[in-house]
Order: sequence, then structure tokens, then C-alpha cells
Amino acid sequence: MIRVGIVGATGYTAVELLKILLRHPEVTVTAITSRDPESPHLSEVHPILRDQLNLNFSLLDIPKFCQQVDVAFCCLPHAASAAIVGQLVDAGVKVIDFSADYRLNDVETFQQWYGVEHPDSQRVGNVAYGIPELFRSAIRSSDVVANPGCFPSSALIPLAPLLKADLIQTAPIIVDSKTGISGAGRKTNLKFHYPECNESISAYGIGTHRHMPEIDQIIKRFCNVDIQTVFTPHLTPMDRGILSTIYVQSKGKASASDIMDCWADFYEDEKFIRVSPDLVATKNVSGTNFCDITARHCRGTIVIVSALDNLIKGASGAAVQNFNVMHGLDDTVGML
Amino acid sequence: MIRVGIVGATGYTAVELLKILLRHPEVTVTAITSRDPESPHLSEVHPILRDQLNLNFSLLDIPKFCQQVDVAFCCLPHAASAAIVGQLVDAGVKVIDFSADYRLNDVETFQQWYGVEHPDSQRVGNVAYGIPELFRSAIRSSDVVANPGCFPSSALIPLAPLLKADLIQTAPIIVDSKTGISGAGRKTNLKFHYPECNESISAYGIGTHRHMPEIDQIIKRFCNVDIQTVFTPHLTPMDRGILSTIYVQSKGKASASDIMDCWADFYEDEKFIRVSPDLVATKNVSGTNFCDITARHCRGTIVIVSALDNLIKGASGAAVQNFNVMHGLDDTVGML
Amino acid sequence: MIRVGIVGATGYTAVELLKILLRHPEVTVTAITSRDPESPHLSEVHPILRDQLNLNFSLLDIPKFCQQVDVAFCCLPHAASAAIVGQLVDAGVKVIDFSADYRLNDVETFQQWYGVEHPDSQRVGNVAYGIPELFRSAIRSSDVVANPGCFPSSALIPLAPLLKADLIQTAPIIVDSKTGISGAGRKTNLKFHYPECNESISAYGIGTHRHMPEIDQIIKRFCNVDIQTVFTPHLTPMDRGILSTIYVQSKGKASASDIMDCWADFYEDEKFIRVSPDLVATKNVSGTNFCDITARHCRGTIVIVSALDNLIKGASGAAVQNFNVMHGLDDTVGML
Amino acid sequence: MIRVGIVGATGYTAVELLKILLRHPEVTVTAITSRDPESPHLSEVHPILRDQLNLNFSLLDIPKFCQQVDVAFCCLPHAASAAIVGQLVDAGVKVIDFSADYRLNDVETFQQWYGVEHPDSQRVGNVAYGIPELFRSAIRSSDVVANPGCFPSSALIPLAPLLKADLIQTAPIIVDSKTGISGAGRKTNLKFHYPECNESISAYGIGTHRHMPEIDQIIKRFCNVDIQTVFTPHLTPMDRGILSTIYVQSKGKASASDIMDCWADFYEDEKFIRVSPDLVATKNVSGTNFCDITARHCRGTIVIVSALDNLIKGASGAAVQNFNVMHGLDDTVGML
Repeated sequence: MIRVGIVGATGYTAVELLKILLRHPEVTVTAITSRDPESPHLSEVHPILRDQLNLNFSLLDIPKFCQQVDVAFCCLPHAASAAIVGQLVDAGVKVIDFSADYRLNDVETFQQWYGVEHPDSQRVGNVAYGIPELFRSAIRSSDVVANPGCFPSSALIPLAPLLKADLIQTAPIIVDSKTGISGAGRKTNLKFHYPECNESISAYGIGTHRHMPEIDQIIKRFCNVDIQTVFTPHLTPMDRGILSTIYVQSKGKASASDIMDCWADFYEDEKFIRVSPDLVATKNVSGTNFCDITARHCRGTIVIVSALDNLIKGASGAAVQNFNVMHGLDDTVGML
Repeated sequence: MIRVGIVGATGYTAVELLKILLRHPEVTVTAITSRDPESPHLSEVHPILRDQLNLNFSLLDIPKFCQQVDVAFCCLPHAASAAIVGQLVDAGVKVIDFSADYRLNDVETFQQWYGVEHPDSQRVGNVAYGIPELFRSAIRSSDVVANPGCFPSSALIPLAPLLKADLIQTAPIIVDSKTGISGAGRKTNLKFHYPECNESISAYGIGTHRHMPEIDQIIKRFCNVDIQTVFTPHLTPMDRGILSTIYVQSKGKASASDIMDCWADFYEDEKFIRVSPDLVATKNVSGTNFCDITARHCRGTIVIVSALDNLIKGASGAAVQNFNVMHGLDDTVGML
Repeated sequence: MIRVGIVGATGYTAVELLKILLRHPEVTVTAITSRDPESPHLSEVHPILRDQLNLNFSLLDIPKFCQQVDVAFCCLPHAASAAIVGQLVDAGVKVIDFSADYRLNDVETFQQWYGVEHPDSQRVGNVAYGIPELFRSAIRSSDVVANPGCFPSSALIPLAPLLKADLIQTAPIIVDSKTGISGAGRKTNLKFHYPECNESISAYGIGTHRHMPEIDQIIKRFCNVDIQTVFTPHLTPMDRGILSTIYVQSKGKASASDIMDCWADFYEDEKFIRVSPDLVATKNVSGTNFCDITARHCRGTIVIVSALDNLIKGASGAAVQNFNVMHGLDDTVGML
Repeated sequence: MIRVGIVGATGYTAVELLKILLRHPEVTVTAITSRDPESPHLSEVHPILRDQLNLNFSLLDIPKFCQQVDVAFCCLPHAASAAIVGQLVDAGVKVIDFSADYRLNDVETFQQWYGVEHPDSQRVGNVAYGIPELFRSAIRSSDVVANPGCFPSSALIPLAPLLKADLIQTAPIIVDSKTGISGAGRKTNLKFHYPECNESISAYGIGTHRHMPEIDQIIKRFCNVDIQTVFTPHLTPMDRGILSTIYVQSKGKASASDIMDCWADFYEDEKFIRVSPDLVATKNVSGTNFCDITARHCRGTIVIVSALDNLIKGASGAAVQNFNVMHGLDDTVGML
């Protein structure tokens, strides 16, 4: 059994991660940490897990933690994560990092968009980006994997094969994304107070969302062109799910069905990417690690729609999938 | 025109109050206060009112405020309200108070349930309770009215006529209430964070909710017996609305239709109480000042169901109705 | 008092229309029709209106109806509406038609997109399109007004002034719209069964939605160029509201604030169009006749966001506004 | 591997059942039937299962079906189910029946409440009632199990041990239940059209719901007294979950903590019943086979709150648990 610990295990991604890990046949969860010095009981923080795991929260004590675990899932905020990842790796612990700290190619872009000094800058640019369907071999040989952002996953999965196959133009690429409110995390904020966001849809962070440069940088690896995605996230009154509607121009008259054929080939062996002839919906992937994708043609524009569960394929499911790849297991262990 | 001010105008009851007052033909809103020293623009706090009222928030300056207004709606928390109501009244301003400060009969009960010293204890017990359908004449001649709690309104409106007519027994009275999340107010709290309460229903405050003694004390006026209501509120995943399912035992074989007849008589001239042969639903009163009530018989028990909008008939609509009664206007002015 | 009838008054637009008309000081509602031969009571069909209107449904008897009313709001499906509008007009009744029958410029486009013969083809192309902010003078002198589609309203209000002022390019224009489920009407369909669409967002009708040619044709009047909008509607888990996120390219380096200035000028005297510096949300217009609009710049693309209530500004509020304009009343009568 | 078939596999319980069975290590799903002669693809009916099961719907052909399966889960409506269960059993197929056909003790009560002739009356009264925590030994030796109703499960699990231990009085027992909309099944009906039931809570079927006699009859087995439960179900705007708030009178001064101790003893070895010191919520059991229960004391009344997922512990999870018990497997196989 592989001993697993979760650093910063009080949020929504952590509870989904625990649900998956508790079913995973190769894993035993041996430590969960929180920055709350009161060490609350697991069932107070995550009542859905009552009686499922005989473990309470403790403060992170790095040397002790490194003795307890073989692999760490880090669910800390950006910068807080990079401040400890190095120490874990040096102690021989493999890390799957949920923060944005190792997703970008370079420290400058990180510091520009996140507005803080990077605490572990020499590692930036050398960490595998955790979409196994796109970067499996790099992930397989890694000690640290940067778990991808939820919005980038929903954009990169459909776009990467098309740019690689030169089926679409590199500009303009418009990504209009709609997310459930759990995407905002578990910290209270008036914006996410139930009566503020229920029965309402709104755009936010137009041109300023940090997932925009992440999409740009990762996508460039498939076309070798600087990409300037136009990315608009929207807050949708539902718990979970991301639907991204992506507008691109085809190259050389590629039709919607050429697009779908390209995906069918590229993702032929992938269990978690489903190319759907029907229009996709977040409900059809809710609670699963699937990403459903489809395409339509409208007056010269290719309209791509992708759907995933922001907490699973957009976070904890992807993390376990990365864990599986890092350990030579089938991607689907613990999830199908 | 009657000049009206709102003290503590940043919450959900205040925005509903403003929406009604802006349509009220006899009212001009002349002041709105907030305890935020930044004096935010109205449209930042209540974007639905953008461009509708040329007024921004100011800190409460009692002498100045009393020169600006004839009537004050106080939307402050308990104790904070009673600390200023006296001063407003002494300056000749009429007050409709949304807090619990003047609802109970005696200071002891207030202090026991609210856990604070009452700042204006001599007035307690002498203030009209603001359900016009039950206490119109007292309200008409009052300078201060205690606007009722949302749950008590949903229980008292159906129960009072039945107890007065001696149609039901005084024990047990079980009030099982379901409220939308706006009932919790506009302060952030993890419990009301969207992903915590969406797609979930739960009971809270069983045996400890402060609206329980309020129901007991007001209802006693109709039967002269000490009542011990068993009251269970539930948090329901919707913005607004209260549905109360009330279980009582009939006296002298009163049937469900006797109950409905009693209401039809008692509320014959009331525009806002609708006795419904059909089962009621919160949606059918949403955004209105109606309270819909119905009754059924089940195996010897009378099951009463009442529905109202917690922000309107349960708060701001009732307040304007009280305002109308205090000024000799028809109850419905500004609302129908 | 102007006598008003509603033809096909059982749906969601009709109940919102009735709510507004019951508050309208110049209107008395004298007839409501339904195609249900059982003539149900109003309170069975629209329980929120219980006791508010002493009128029940009847089958449409055109001669009788024309004696009862001065103005008809027709809420029938397409083609069914045009089959009777002519008769009403010939009898001297003014008509505000909610269907799509008179919105398009020509019969061919109608028949191509709606797949039926037009029952009143000679009138097509000669009917005022009912956005008063864009076509006030035509509406003022009309006997029949085509009430606009909800999605087109959300696109045309922001786009028309910009095209007229030559601030944006005529292609590409991408309209990514999100609507609440009431937009689908009140007929049952598995797609709109609560557990199917709750907690889910999905795109539908990509490239095939009938509001697309409507946007194209109306918008052309402001730029004299054939427009080919790329329009993607989405079903959002909420009752009401439309948010349209619109992607256009500026011309001559117009910035987001140039866009906002253009709107501020164009809509200076309009009470129902609010140009907002803040990002807009459907909740902030819910239950109102407002359309809130804003713009942002993102990497060369202008991102416009508009919000309206599909049942009010997108249907019944617009209809009453048209009614007001047709009768020389201020636009806002009955609504502010 | 045990070969399993699902009869009537197009609804919400069937899709949840399939999700569990696909993870179940001892099961292979070999047939799914539908009464739709078009034999739709699984992914059209249940898009969340796209690519997960290489099987399409067929019409039920009993002899063929009995060769394909060892065990049948019958998800047909009442009466339709009993019309075929006998044939399946006679052919050696074990049956877990989701309908109400075999839940009641006698044919008279069935016919009175369901209003139809029972098609397999001689079996009524001889079928194990499928709550393993209460009737494990009967289930273990059965060929047919009557899967319990969702509301009865939420009432019987907390009540049975208390009646057996003589801790509470047998009257009055008031069960105030709140259910998500999936409880209404997947057939369209205006009542469950999204805009009708969203943002609304309402009571229905007071005194007439068919789960009321089911509670009465099953509960009698624990106290040998005729019970007349007062049962009020409510429709709650959420997909799934049942919360039952149950009001009983204690006997011999049993306190809330005596109640909780009784449960803790009775359910000591049960993995799916969680006695919670905290107040329970449907969200904390959503997607799981848990039933969470708690109790509070309020003015002489014991207030019990139970929470379960109506589609899992209230239907398909219970069914798989019954399946496990019938086959000598641990209750939790496939579910934890």
C-alpha cells in the first residue's frame, strides 16, 4: 500500500480527493493537515466522511509528515505550496501539487500574475503539467506534478490535439467558461454567500483571470506560436461543473466532424475523454473524472463545448490520475 | 409626502424595503444609513437599485437624521436597535423596528434568549406587535411598532384565530418551518456559503431558536394559556420563502373545513391573507406580501400549512403595511 | 381606463404581464383566454394571482373579445398568433404580439426558420419591432408591435448603438447567451424536468436557434451590412434571467470606455437601460424591466456583457413599455 | 461473477444502480430493458454512462432475460412489477423489486391505497422487506426482496429500535419529510417542470401518500401496536435527498441521549447507519448509502432528524445492499 498524506485538507478538493482515495485499492491515507491549530475532527470539517477514516487533522510538521507518507497531495494556496514542496521532495516524498505554483513556464509570468515572490523559483519550468492525456510520459517519470487549473483543463483538452494537427487557427481563440460555485473554494466571501449568487449568472475577471496565462503557455507547446486566449469565466448557480464554449476558426476548411475525428484518434486509448456526438452538459460528468467534448459548425466558426467536474477532472480526479500514472498504475484505478 | 429613513440599510430586508418604498405614492426616502464609515454608493451595495435613488449611505447622526425623516425603519441587529430607538422617538420620529428588541412582553425573557442587557427596557411590553391583521388598532395609535419575526408571522397568522375561537388544543403545537437562505441575513458565514447549503436541507436550532418564545408570548394573547410551541426551523436551498407545517389537535371535532371557515371569517377583510383550498407553496407568495394558509385533516391531527415570503410579509412588506396603518392609509398602498 | 385582454394567458410571460398590468394605473384587464376548453380558474393556473383579478379563462371568441378590449397582448405560439392578429387589428384592436410572427423582415426567412407557412404574410416587414429604445417613433404610430425575442433584446441593445456609431466591426460577432429555464416556456419536456436541468449548464441549438436570424436582420438596420452572428444559447439552472457575453472587434481602436461612452450618450434619456461600470449579473435585473450593460477590453477583443430578465425586459415588461409608447404614456408607467 | 439484469432501466434509480453495479467486483450487468420499442442507446438515455457499458436497451423477453441473468432488479411501476416477478422467480431468477408491490402485509391494504388489483396476490405478505439493518436474516434467505420506499426508510431506521426498546410512545408519531425532486421519478409533469418547483417548497399528499401505510405496517413489527403515523411529505428544490423530522413522545423520561445510545447499540455493527451528535443534512449523505440520524429534546418532545439520499439508501444503494446480503457478501461491497 502506498501511504498518502494531504496537506491542507479542509477544502472542497480535499474532500473529493479523500472520497476517491478511500476507494483506491493501492492507497492508505496516513496524514491530513490543516493550518487550524485546534486540530478539528474530520467529521466536523467534512461530515460526509463521518466514520470513514480514523484520522484527525494535525498541523503540518514536515519531518514527521515525511515519515508518515510516500506521496503528498498539496492543497495549499499558491506560494504557500511552493514554500514546502521542495522540502517534501528533498525528503523523498512525491508531490502532486494543486496550487498554481509550478504550472507556468517561468517565474516572471508567475510573479506578474500572482503578485508574489515565488518561494521555489528554480523548480519552475521543470515540473510536469498534470494532464496525463497530454503529458503522460513526463508525468510518469516525475517526483512533482503540477495539477492543472480547472478552466485550463476544460480548454486544453479540446484545443491541444487540434492545434497539434494544425486544424484550427491560433487566433482568435475565445474561451467562454461557466463554473459552479465550488470553484471559488471554501472561504467565505459575500460574493459566494448563497442569496448573492443563487438564481444569478455573471461574468468575472474578464482579461484578468490567472488561468488565462496558464492556458496560453501550455497550449503553445502544441503549436509553437504565442497564443493570446480571450478568456471569460462566469459564475453559475450550481455546486460543481465547468462548461467551456470555445470559438475558433478552422484552417483548411476543417469541419466539425473533422474536429471530432481528430479527437477520436488522439484520445482513442483514453478512458476519461469522451468525444460526444450529442451536446454535452455538466450534469453528465458530475462526480466523475470524465471530460466530454463535442464540436459544431456555425457560419464559419467552430464552436467547441467541453464539460468536466471542476472538483474531479478539474482537480482531485486529475490528481489521482496523475498519482496512478506516477506509480505505473492504470489511470482509472480508484475511479472506474 | 412622508419623509422616510432607513437605519442599517445594507441588508436584504432593506433592499426589499427600498423597492417597495420607491413605488409608494406617499413616501419619499430621504436618508439611508450604514455602519460602514466608507459611505459606499447605493449601487455598490444594492446593484439592483442602480440609478433608482439619488442617495448614498451615511453614518447615523441621530440629530441630523431626525431632521431629515418623519419615520424611521430600523434594520439593525437586536440590542443595537433599542440603543437608538428611544432617541428617535423622543425626537418625534415614528419607528418601525425590524429587530427583536420590542417583540417580547418582558425584559427577562429577552435577556434570557438574547443573552444581552436590554438597552431600553422600560419600553419593553408597551410596543405594538406589527401584525396588522391581529393588532391593527394598537398599531394605528403607535409611535413605535415591533415588526414581527418571519417564522412567528407564519405561525401566528394561522394559529391566532383558531385559538381565539377555541377550535384547537393549546398543546401540543408543533411548528415545522422551512426557510430560504436569505433568512440568515447578509453576513457571510460558512454555513451559508453557496456550496455548503445548496442541494441540502437541514434542521437547525431545535429547541433553541429565539423565535420560539416570541411565538409563545404572542399566541398567549389569544388563548390566555401558557403555550410551549415545539419549533424546528430548517434551512432550504432557495433564496426566499417560509413554509410552516403546523401540527395541532382539534377541539370538539373541528374539521379541516371548520378551520378554513374560521380563517375565512376572521380574515374576511384582509387583502394579504389568502385562505387557499389548494396546498400552498412559497413560490406562490414570492415577492408579495401575501400569507397563504390551508389546512388538512390527517388521522385526528390538523395539519396547517402556511406560506409567506420571509423578506416581504415576513419583514419589509409587513413593515410598510404597519407604516400604512400608522398613517391611516390602506394596508395595501405601495404593494398591490 | 384602457381595456386590455391577453390571448393565451396560461404561460410564464402572461403571469408576469398580469402582475404588471394589475399595478398599471391606466389599465383594466377585461379578458384572458386559453385554449383549454375547461376554462380553469385563474388561481388554479396562476396561484400567485389568487384573489387578485376577478376573471377566469375563456376560449377565444374573436368578435366577443374585440368588444371587450381596446388592446390585446397575444401570447400564442408562432403561426397561431398570426392567424388571429389580422382579425383583431381589423376590428380596431391594437396588438402587442409576443410571437416571432412579425419580427422578421420577410416571409421567406420566416418560413425557412420556422418551417411553416405564414398565415398573415402581407403584414410581415411592416410591423414595428418592439424595442422602444431603438424604434420608439415607429412603435408610437403602430397598431401592431412585434414584441422582440428575449435573446435578441440582450444582443441588440448593446450592439445597435455601437454599429450605428461605427465603433465595432461587423464580423465576427459572437453572442454567447445564458438563459434561465423559464425561457423554455411552461410546456413539460424531459429536458426541463427539474432533475434533468438542475445543477447543470449546457449549450443547445448551436447554429440553429431561431433568434439568430432575428438578431441578424434587426441589427442590419444599424449598419447596412449583412451580419452573420454566431449565436450560442445555454440553459442555466435558474428560473429567470439572460446574460449575454458578446465578443466583437473594435474599429479604429475604440476602447471599452469609448464603448461605454457611446452607450451613455445613446441611452441618456432611457430609464430602462443602465450602463454599468461594474460587471453585471442577472440577479441585479431580476423582476425588473432593466437591461444592464457593460464592456471590457481583453487583448484586442471587446467583451460586452448584458443582463436582463427574460420574462420582463425580454418579454412582458417590454410589452408594457411598448403599450405605454403606443398610448403616449411614459415608458415607465406601471413598472417604476 | 453474478449476472445481473435491470428491468425498466430508464429512470433515476436505474442510473444510480448501474453506477454502483459497474463498480461492484462480483457483478456483471448482462441485460437492461425498457418498454420503449425503439431500443435506444444507453448513452442517449443515461449520457453519464456513455462508453461505460456495452449494452443497449431491449424489450423485456422473459424467457430470454431469465437465461441472461441470475438476479433481476425490477424498477417497474407498481402492479407492472408484480405482473412479472412471479415468472422471474419461477425461472430461478432472484429478484430485488423496487416497486411497492410486495412491501405491504396484505392485499387489501395494497388495493385500497394503490387502487388496482394485485397481479401476484399470493406472494404478498411473504416477502422480506429490504432494510438489512432491520431484517437481515429474512433477506439473506430470500429469493425476492421488496426494496423499501424512500420515505419509509428515513422513518423506520430511527423509529424501529426505539419502539422495540420501548423508549417512545406509539402515538402520536409525526413524520415531516422533505424530499428532492428526483423522488418524483423521471416522468414529465408540470409540477416538476423546473420553473414550477425551483425556488419553492410545498407540502403534498397530506394524509394520502402511499408511504404512510407502509410505515405503519412495518413499524408495527417492532411494537405490536397498530400505528397511525401522521406523514407529510414536502417537495424541496434540490435534486436528491430526504430529510425527515420526526416528532415523538418519550416513555419513562428517555432523553435525547438515551435515544442516541439506543441507536448506537442497535446499529453498532452497521456501516451505513451513522448516529450523529451533530445535526444532520442531506448534503452529508448525498451520493452515499448512509443514513444519518440524530435526536434532540424540545419541551418534552423528542425531535428526531434523519437524512439519506433518496436514490441511494432510499432506493438503489439499499437494493445493492440487499443483493449483497442475499449473496452472503459484506453489505458494503461495491459501495465503500
